[in-house]
Amino acid sequence: MNVNLPETLASVTAAFEAYEAALMRNDVEALIPFFWQSPQAVRFGATENLYGWDAIVNFRQNRQPPLPRTLMNTVITTFGEDYANISTEYRNSAGVCGRQMQSWVRTDAGWRIAAAHISLRPEIS
Amino acid sequence: MNVNLPETLASVTAAFEAYEAALMRNDVEALIPFFWQSPQAVRFGATENLYGWDAIVNFRQNRQPPLPRTLMNTVITTFGEDYANISTEYRNSAGVCGRQMQSWVRTDAGWRIAAAHISLRPEIS
Repeated sequence: MNVNLPETLASVTAAFEAYEAALMRNDVEALIPFFWQSPQAVRFGATENLYGWDAIVNFRQNRQPPLPRTLMNTVITTFGEDYANISTEYRNSAGVCGRQMQSWVRTDAGWRIAAAHISLRPEIS
Repeated sequence: MNVNLPETLASVTAAFEAYEAALMRNDVEALIPFFWQSPQAVRFGATENLYGWDAIVNFRQNRQPPLPRTLMNTVITTFGEDYANISTEYRNSAGVCGRQMQSWVRTDAGWRIAAAHISLRPEIS
């Protein structure tokens, strides 16, 4: 098992950073393609459980813009050349803290988020 | 990208079911090997953020036995022959609901949980 091959780590890190930048400007058209276009895609959000790409897209198109946030303790791990897990804690401008975990897969079209889980943890700084 | 190849899906499903069974009987010695033995392993629990295999093992050895729980809406997706994401909702015997997401990788020693995120969602049935 090849963990954190440099090219793989660099390319998924770039995708993760591009996703975060799109999230912060609430660029829905940029965000949607980051999710794996499959009925198997899953997103557990802070306040919703979404199954399948259609449900994720519908959520993205109707959500309020997120508050600015700072990421902390980000861990990016790649396995082979086409699979990665990225976890991070965050704190937004209202002082709300949370955790985000994503499974990324590299498709012919580029890196995609196959599954994501976001949860709030106000008591963790 | 080969999604849900039958042998891969069957083998990680068996690992997932064995993990759940060990969790329900709080069999710590059986649970510990399921986690990837790496400082890159991450576990966001309901009430803790754990970084690295040592922290996860320490948590396992000191936690209270979990309540019996029923899994709901489990989604198992494999990518290639060595990577999988498994998400599930659950409800325990006290009526507490939550979500669990795991990234599994197949090592020479078998399937291992490289990353996990558990969060409580009492308001989702």
